[in-house]
Amino acid sequence: MPKLNPTTKNTKVLSVGLVSSPRHGGNRQWAAPIAGVSPREMLDFSANINPLGPPPSALAAIQAHLEELRHYPDPDYRELKLALGDFYGVSPDRVLPGNGAAELLTWIGRELAHLESTVILRPAFGDYDRAFNAFYSKTENLYILNRDFRTEISLVENPQNKGLLLNNPHNPTGKLIPKTEILDCIKKFNTVVIDEAFMDFLPPHQDQSCLDLVELYPNLIILRSLTKFYSLPGLRLGFVVAHPDRLERWQNWRDPWSVNCLAVAAGIGVVKDKGFQAQTWAWLPEARSDLYRKISQVEGFEPLPSLSNFLLIKTPVPGSKLQKYLLQNHKILIRDCLSFAELGEKYIRLAVLRNAAHDVLFKALVDLNTLSDYSLF
Amino acid sequence: MPKLNPTTKNTKVLSVGLVSSPRHGGNRQWAAPIAGVSPREMLDFSANINPLGPPPSALAAIQAHLEELRHYPDPDYRELKLALGDFYGVSPDRVLPGNGAAELLTWIGRELAHLESTVILRPAFGDYDRAFNAFYSKTENLYILNRDFRTEISLVENPQNKGLLLNNPHNPTGKLIPKTEILDCIKKFNTVVIDEAFMDFLPPHQDQSCLDLVELYPNLIILRSLTKFYSLPGLRLGFVVAHPDRLERWQNWRDPWSVNCLAVAAGIGVVKDKGFQAQTWAWLPEARSDLYRKISQVEGFEPLPSLSNFLLIKTPVPGSKLQKYLLQNHKILIRDCLSFAELGEKYIRLAVLRNAAHDVLFKALVDLNTLSDYSLF
Repeated sequence: MPKLNPTTKNTKVLSVGLVSSPRHGGNRQWAAPIAGVSPREMLDFSANINPLGPPPSALAAIQAHLEELRHYPDPDYRELKLALGDFYGVSPDRVLPGNGAAELLTWIGRELAHLESTVILRPAFGDYDRAFNAFYSKTENLYILNRDFRTEISLVENPQNKGLLLNNPHNPTGKLIPKTEILDCIKKFNTVVIDEAFMDFLPPHQDQSCLDLVELYPNLIILRSLTKFYSLPGLRLGFVVAHPDRLERWQNWRDPWSVNCLAVAAGIGVVKDKGFQAQTWAWLPEARSDLYRKISQVEGFEPLPSLSNFLLIKTPVPGSKLQKYLLQNHKILIRDCLSFAELGEKYIRLAVLRNAAHDVLFKALVDLNTLSDYSLF
Repeated sequence: MPKLNPTTKNTKVLSVGLVSSPRHGGNRQWAAPIAGVSPREMLDFSANINPLGPPPSALAAIQAHLEELRHYPDPDYRELKLALGDFYGVSPDRVLPGNGAAELLTWIGRELAHLESTVILRPAFGDYDRAFNAFYSKTENLYILNRDFRTEISLVENPQNKGLLLNNPHNPTGKLIPKTEILDCIKKFNTVVIDEAFMDFLPPHQDQSCLDLVELYPNLIILRSLTKFYSLPGLRLGFVVAHPDRLERWQNWRDPWSVNCLAVAAGIGVVKDKGFQAQTWAWLPEARSDLYRKISQVEGFEPLPSLSNFLLIKTPVPGSKLQKYLLQNHKILIRDCLSFAELGEKYIRLAVLRNAAHDVLFKALVDLNTLSDYSLF
């Protein structure tokens, strides 16, 4: 067995004065000084957050529960589990809320540490590696950019001894894996984790969630986030749906009050907000097409088709240099793809925002194309 | 090395319908149905929370930052580290904020897992055992009730291979260990963790914090909470002060956004609130004397002297039965001591509240003493 706490390699330098380059989108504190403005004055395409939110229902729930701050949260999170179970059609005793999906990823990394390895779809959210490295969980890569998921997955050897971590819809490609293909994996792999952080963005007729399979397959773990769709990443709220025995174990690994009481109140409030859900489902397809069309019109930029609220885009200039250029000249923050090793400088990722924001970015890219030779980058 | 994830023993049953008996104070969701009222209608002596708070400065900071909810927190928590470092007189790069002190306790449990064992002062906060059990960290007991700390600690063998976890002021006894005695321990033990969750309640002239020793002793870890003194346990905010190498390691174990942005805003706001701090220091000594005096007047009840904001009290009737009696008959929630194995039914713990609340409890205990024979319990 690996040791629990040798000095970790690849540690990030914790520095208060010096701002390190971000590993994730949404790092406005890093970007704002480069743009020379306050974080609020930037146009942020880097974090995949719903631009329509947070819904007034969330803010109303928070206001109504400020009085609760003087009390500890319910360590069993009964009300929240009931609300989530009711909305997502799962049994409340299979729900474990967390301090954002990222907190639960920590325990997923630990849970899968005893397996021969865990297959991770690449490119992948950088925090997967953090969580798996933290517990010396072995991983192997499965590339899905420009490849067929079903073919790639069939080539994995000894799946019965391995974990599989997939992200559906997939960040950053925006691909959606059909539920039938995932079901085949659940039957073959020892443990399957599906990060459905962006699934709420798909309207009911497109939904490919495997939440209803948790009752049937004890080897299945579904991870969900409430902060992207409801625009509350600052509040921290996610949950896992899995077999109760697994959740009991995690509950004993972590502290009893992991979710703050305002996140509890907001979570209970937003899942009932049918209006906001319908509004988002009405907005997204058109807004995504708008961004896709505009970006496609700029010479050299090639967006990939996406079913989620972001686009992965092949860029004619190195992503990190384009990011810096747009920050310095247009106060626009985009996501470079350096944290996705396989993508490097060849891609950027953009969140779908409102059409007016797309116009601002479009104009900046057209100007760049007109004024300069890409080879100068 | 122990295995990372066998099915854990002693797991708590996670049940949504059935409310399990609480392991901690402040479990109002468990108590309210027994009292037959809503949680808000109970008088809560069970959680050691400052009854004067939360300060208006905290609520104002939260209100002013609701707009921030749509953004991820700064993963480096620069502003919060600067504010805490400034107020507590420590270097910001030695500060790591956490989702309540309990989240940081998890990483303390892991950090000390490689030691021969860790000596824990008993009786102790139940969450210490959770954190140490979670990582199979070995522990041994050091009893301090009715015993002399200096003598007991001198009897520990091989301190150079061991950790020491102490709580100062000590919960639940209210004892304060002088800094000079702790310094002796820091020089002898491999690693010393001091949980100073209640130290803020001591006015500057009584303070025995070891925060200033962290610069000198890399084997020292100080754990602090901001939610007890500032009455914000629902918001979750604590921090650790330790060597930067240690904090880098923990940062890679846990997710990047562990502290929500409203807790960040409140934390930055409250440490500047000199008025609230002075008000609390003026209130506590008199209020504690008031509660001590009233409880002492009831036959059979013997409070221990305390320098913190709670009293440990020897009770003439079993603590859990008294708890149930007071809930059912007076809607008063006290803390039984069943989660402190060494105390069992012989003690109860009471938070110091306002004098009017003490009167209500006093009257209830006098009535009990007048109306019934304790032996009926």
